[in-house]
Amino acid sequence: MLTREFEEKIDGKTTKKLRIIRVARGIEPADLVLKNAVYVNVFSNELCKGDIAVAEGLVVGMGSYEGTEEYDASGKIVCPGFVDAHIHLESAVVTPDRFAAAVLPHGTTTVITDPHEIANVMGDDGIEYMLQATAGLPIDVHFMLPSCVPSTPEDESGAVLSYRDIDRFYGHPKVLGLAEMMDYVGVINGDRSVVEKIIASQAHHKKIDGHAPGLSGNELNAYISAGVYSDHECYDLDNALEKLRKGQFIMIRDGTAAHNLDALLPLLTPQYCSRCMFATDDKHPSDLLENGHIDYLVRRAVKAGVDPIIAVKTASHHAARYFLLNNKGAVAPGYLADLTVVDNLYDLNTERVYKKGRLVYDGEVKPFKKPQIWESLIARAHSSFFVKTLSESDFSSDSPLGVVGMINGEIVTESLGTANKTDIEADILKAAVIERHRGTGHIGLGFLKGYGLKKGAVATSISHDSHNIIAVGANENDMATAVNRVVRNAGGIVVAEGGKIIAELELPVAGLMSELPLEAVNTKLEAAKAAAYSLGVNRGIDPFMTLSFMSLTVIPKARITTFGVIDTETGEYVSGIGR
Amino acid sequence: MLTREFEEKIDGKTTKKLRIIRVARGIEPADLVLKNAVYVNVFSNELCKGDIAVAEGLVVGMGSYEGTEEYDASGKIVCPGFVDAHIHLESAVVTPDRFAAAVLPHGTTTVITDPHEIANVMGDDGIEYMLQATAGLPIDVHFMLPSCVPSTPEDESGAVLSYRDIDRFYGHPKVLGLAEMMDYVGVINGDRSVVEKIIASQAHHKKIDGHAPGLSGNELNAYISAGVYSDHECYDLDNALEKLRKGQFIMIRDGTAAHNLDALLPLLTPQYCSRCMFATDDKHPSDLLENGHIDYLVRRAVKAGVDPIIAVKTASHHAARYFLLNNKGAVAPGYLADLTVVDNLYDLNTERVYKKGRLVYDGEVKPFKKPQIWESLIARAHSSFFVKTLSESDFSSDSPLGVVGMINGEIVTESLGTANKTDIEADILKAAVIERHRGTGHIGLGFLKGYGLKKGAVATSISHDSHNIIAVGANENDMATAVNRVVRNAGGIVVAEGGKIIAELELPVAGLMSELPLEAVNTKLEAAKAAAYSLGVNRGIDPFMTLSFMSLTVIPKARITTFGVIDTETGEYVSGIGR
Repeated sequence: MLTREFEEKIDGKTTKKLRIIRVARGIEPADLVLKNAVYVNVFSNELCKGDIAVAEGLVVGMGSYEGTEEYDASGKIVCPGFVDAHIHLESAVVTPDRFAAAVLPHGTTTVITDPHEIANVMGDDGIEYMLQATAGLPIDVHFMLPSCVPSTPEDESGAVLSYRDIDRFYGHPKVLGLAEMMDYVGVINGDRSVVEKIIASQAHHKKIDGHAPGLSGNELNAYISAGVYSDHECYDLDNALEKLRKGQFIMIRDGTAAHNLDALLPLLTPQYCSRCMFATDDKHPSDLLENGHIDYLVRRAVKAGVDPIIAVKTASHHAARYFLLNNKGAVAPGYLADLTVVDNLYDLNTERVYKKGRLVYDGEVKPFKKPQIWESLIARAHSSFFVKTLSESDFSSDSPLGVVGMINGEIVTESLGTANKTDIEADILKAAVIERHRGTGHIGLGFLKGYGLKKGAVATSISHDSHNIIAVGANENDMATAVNRVVRNAGGIVVAEGGKIIAELELPVAGLMSELPLEAVNTKLEAAKAAAYSLGVNRGIDPFMTLSFMSLTVIPKARITTFGVIDTETGEYVSGIGR
Repeated sequence: MLTREFEEKIDGKTTKKLRIIRVARGIEPADLVLKNAVYVNVFSNELCKGDIAVAEGLVVGMGSYEGTEEYDASGKIVCPGFVDAHIHLESAVVTPDRFAAAVLPHGTTTVITDPHEIANVMGDDGIEYMLQATAGLPIDVHFMLPSCVPSTPEDESGAVLSYRDIDRFYGHPKVLGLAEMMDYVGVINGDRSVVEKIIASQAHHKKIDGHAPGLSGNELNAYISAGVYSDHECYDLDNALEKLRKGQFIMIRDGTAAHNLDALLPLLTPQYCSRCMFATDDKHPSDLLENGHIDYLVRRAVKAGVDPIIAVKTASHHAARYFLLNNKGAVAPGYLADLTVVDNLYDLNTERVYKKGRLVYDGEVKPFKKPQIWESLIARAHSSFFVKTLSESDFSSDSPLGVVGMINGEIVTESLGTANKTDIEADILKAAVIERHRGTGHIGLGFLKGYGLKKGAVATSISHDSHNIIAVGANENDMATAVNRVVRNAGGIVVAEGGKIIAELELPVAGLMSELPLEAVNTKLEAAKAAAYSLGVNRGIDPFMTLSFMSLTVIPKARITTFGVIDTETGEYVSGIGR
């Protein structure tokens, strides 16, 4: 027997559908009509023309229609709203409402996020926070559940998530699957606890995204056979083609940290394009403000000679089909009226954006209600630092410490043996990673070569993936000053010199995000960057972003953790107490 | 908290997956390797070469592999198993196990059936019967739930199915959605009970197939907006293109009763093909035996100049993606090892078929276990006739009766007024439809012109869609003989003359299907056809199939039902008691 609740739901939806049918037939006015529109038809791969009628948030017909609201779209092109197939929202260092306001002017209406950063800080509460912080925004935020928290056992993160810990989220309507399975080595080697996560996502009939740079041959077969359906780590065409031929969907990833579009442009042809979509992975404030979002990839692809219809489909329809968002990614009856109106397909300036038929951008972002988040989650997010006040001596060591050698423009490093003391002339700076989640008091010390600082210190609570505090300094006193200020600010980036704070960006939400608008955050961040460069930071390095990768133990070769300096290729600690 | 059952399921599946990973890596032998295979790569749209390794029923890798079983596929082409996107299995007039044995030699590994015929006889028990009768077969049979039982209120069918009656089936893993929504008029006119069925399928996140011959413009927009995602009734290119442009998937239907492939060949190009798949709708025994199944469509498409890769994808991958059968329709790691090995892509002779890695055909169909069906369902299926013994007088009438005019090669008819009596010279024959589901005793009488019979009578329990018994005769005595024999046989086709049965095919399963092999059924059916022709039936008509449509009230113009002769365009009864 059906429940009364189900019958009432069917009844209510039917009433709404009957109105949609009447509007589609033209016997009742539409809520909105985009008159004389030229639109991208993702099914027939051509531009089509007609009035686009919208009712109850859906496109209901193309043809000749009248509506209570009408917009003359003559001379414009209507595209399906753009989709970012893989992003970590936290990388924009603003809360999701601020992110939404920043990407709507670029025609984005849907993003698929992996809340991996905040989960490393707050565990399942971090996932819950992001689900609540994205509910009801004027963009749709879908989720892939973090697969690798922490990224390796070397990480002292805020949480350890097994398949059991994330299972309850699969029932959430916004959750689409398991996010990038970075531990491809664990998969290939048959690590049961890793493979279980894939199996659990499959058991819920969900997707599993991949992350396997350069993986090839039988090892790639093993990784795909395990159930990994996509990859966004293709940096060369051959590897992308091998993955595509073996059935993986290719997310052409081009964001702030990694740029793969140019190498993968040859995929954007009729032969291959249906298996491709666009992703940014990470977008930092200045990049978002200066270049844009998915529109930036479309624009660059078209300017490089890609058929604009293919570029727009890759930016919308293909991602929607991969993620089984079957009412998204097309301008057609029954699809959500997520519409991006652009001037033309070459310049691709977004003029208007409709989300579920509601005008959300027309040169300015329309005001929207901020999502409600449980007070307990807000409190936890704002109180994620458990570090006592530090002093110079906390950064001192009597023993030699490992030296991490930075390389301009790269996040891989060299292992440069050990050193006994800071040597500014030789660009050997003291570095530290301070555990901040549990109050263990762990501080891993080492040296960093190649950062360039001549005086003062820099500290940031963005340090992948566990987001402890990483600091580097020309002297230990400024390091203590900078770290203490990060802790007092409940997170963020600090530049200190001579015992004073000379620039800072507060990131009080989990130590990762600001609640200010993106523009304000960008101003502070750029000022902090300028301050860091003024203290001597090597111009070939982003003073905060590059630093934030120095504790990420999945990348070769030397890294600094809360336990000291580790050679990630041998797994041996060069200095420090070790795990 | 997770249930112990769930954790055990994850554990068991993980163990299996770990083996798959080892085989894919090449460190453990595969269950099966197709050595030196050339296979259709549906992702890169090309032929690729390599060993295809299979473990645990899945393809796990292409490359260089060894297996406990090996087959040298040199010189052959490996395709994904073929998929029929829409069929009514009952039309083959054999039970599903017999159907499976008949289509495996044609490379079919998956069909999506609408058990509409048996549901008109047995209601939800008919759906349940087919679910059980297809479980574990060497082809996968997926289901779309019948949307229009009965097809119109004029039909005295065995059941009336509302959305509530079919709801419980949506939870069944083989059920993919709601079958062809034939009542497009009801949808467009906003008939709540019709639209509810669509809404309920959507509420279960399932597909809804369409059936809307010639529908166009705003009415088509309304139908699609209501939530109908496909159409298999396109008989001309323009209508197909309009539907495709508006987002419907196009099932290119070419079976026994309707032939649309030639008209729709222009869809099989890179521009449109990803939105197209193949379907047969109805396949009768002789057509299956003489021409084949989906392979017949591929072969014809290729011979007509379609790119063979496109033809094979349309026959496999596209249907799999539409129905969200995400591990079907490709030769790639993680996909089911449903593989059809053919000699070449032009002649397309199937040499071997693997289902989930098991050899099921290699020139002969390998024996397989018949599905277990509840005894109560078998009993009900074998006892679906409730008709008392009839005599000549039951077919007599004192009043004039409506005349249904048959047209050679068509199933539409003319309404030819009334007649008083049978006139063999003028080819006016007595016709009757005998209610058989409830024992109401209703017998609708009329005349049929154009059938051609000179003596004797024909009766069949296949009469769309309600499958009452339809009979036509040169005299009422032979009509009674034929109908009584159909009832005694618990269903089937009978040709009688001079009070004797001169040919018959028993269809004791719901009056629709035989339990004999297809070849045996075909022999009997062809003999019965020959007998009918020998009695004078017009050669431009199929004596049973064409007759079976004479009571289908959704088709213009005159039809005969259990209530008499109706003009389906006006809804008025020409003769008889009326509804």
